[in-house]
Amino acid sequence: MRELIERIEKDGRVLGEGVLKVDSFVTHQVDPELMEKIGERFAEVFKDANITKVVTIEASGIAPALYAAQTLGVPMVFARKSKSLTMNEELLTSSVYSFTKQVTSTISISRKFLSEKDNVLIIDDFLANGQAAKGLIELCQQAGAKVEGIGIVIEKSFQDGRELLEEMGLKVVSLARIASLSNGKVEFIEEDA
Amino acid sequence: MRELIERIEKDGRVLGEGVLKVDSFVTHQVDPELMEKIGERFAEVFKDANITKVVTIEASGIAPALYAAQTLGVPMVFARKSKSLTMNEELLTSSVYSFTKQVTSTISISRKFLSEKDNVLIIDDFLANGQAAKGLIELCQQAGAKVEGIGIVIEKSFQDGRELLEEMGLKVVSLARIASLSNGKVEFIEEDA
Repeated sequence: MRELIERIEKDGRVLGEGVLKVDSFVTHQVDPELMEKIGERFAEVFKDANITKVVTIEASGIAPALYAAQTLGVPMVFARKSKSLTMNEELLTSSVYSFTKQVTSTISISRKFLSEKDNVLIIDDFLANGQAAKGLIELCQQAGAKVEGIGIVIEKSFQDGRELLEEMGLKVVSLARIASLSNGKVEFIEEDA
Repeated sequence: MRELIERIEKDGRVLGEGVLKVDSFVTHQVDPELMEKIGERFAEVFKDANITKVVTIEASGIAPALYAAQTLGVPMVFARKSKSLTMNEELLTSSVYSFTKQVTSTISISRKFLSEKDNVLIIDDFLANGQAAKGLIELCQQAGAKVEGIGIVIEKSFQDGRELLEEMGLKVVSLARIASLSNGKVEFIEEDA
């Protein structure tokens, strides 16, 4: 997505090998206009997939997921992160390992918001090792919902998240694909949409 | 706001004294269309306040804040919650005590996203004791930013949050004001907007 790539080139900051900071328009301060365009793009790509729910994880996934859901005319559900597993039969839960923080956290969605009738579009702001997306997929599987695809705002294509998800047979659509963050410079490869 | 009140009457659930669950359209599953109307209403109320930033706190505040920011044509910034205070001079931080969870957590916003040039509209999904809003106000004060007002989706008017904020001289606008949750029933008082 041309506009997103240009914005990353303008306002993204490379902090050491492998770290891209986009906190001025995606992950902390948020540009609503750009997020709306991102959401509309995801909705366009998945418009024929009969999506019934858009699922993401708090907090940075919420903005792009919200606009995608609005354009598709469906609800958005965000998974909660919590440090401890609360025993509750009404929750779908899965474990997500963070390579950056080196901790495992539990994510959860209330069972009543996902069912075997749902066709889910999963949205997240970043795809690196794919662990967060994998956790969301597991929540959908527990509910018997079908995952129709994964929409990613920024993909670190030099990490193995996409491979992991594609090996599960899933369609992955990333709006900016980063080939390398070496030498303080962002290099892109051709984006999906 | 008539549409919000009707939705609370239809889909809100009273869980014991003082607890209103709106997780099917606000706090977990989110209705984008309703959130857009809520955001537009806040923007309408504060359209002459020269707002430069909409500030909220993750995660449920993000959706209404995003649409308010979009309508006002300004960025949205969400404060992060974290259990431990990371010593970082680039962060504005404050402590928020949760009466429900009986824990104090630290909330933070990167210093670079708020300055003395900002006129801030604070948005949150709930106002009960006002502790979260007070924490956000403190972050703005640390930055020298001016808080122009507080927009609340659902106010528990039987708790003292509004009084606390009004005593600080702040304009509080709530789209649904709840007088009582006694006997499993939601009773509203006249809303602000």
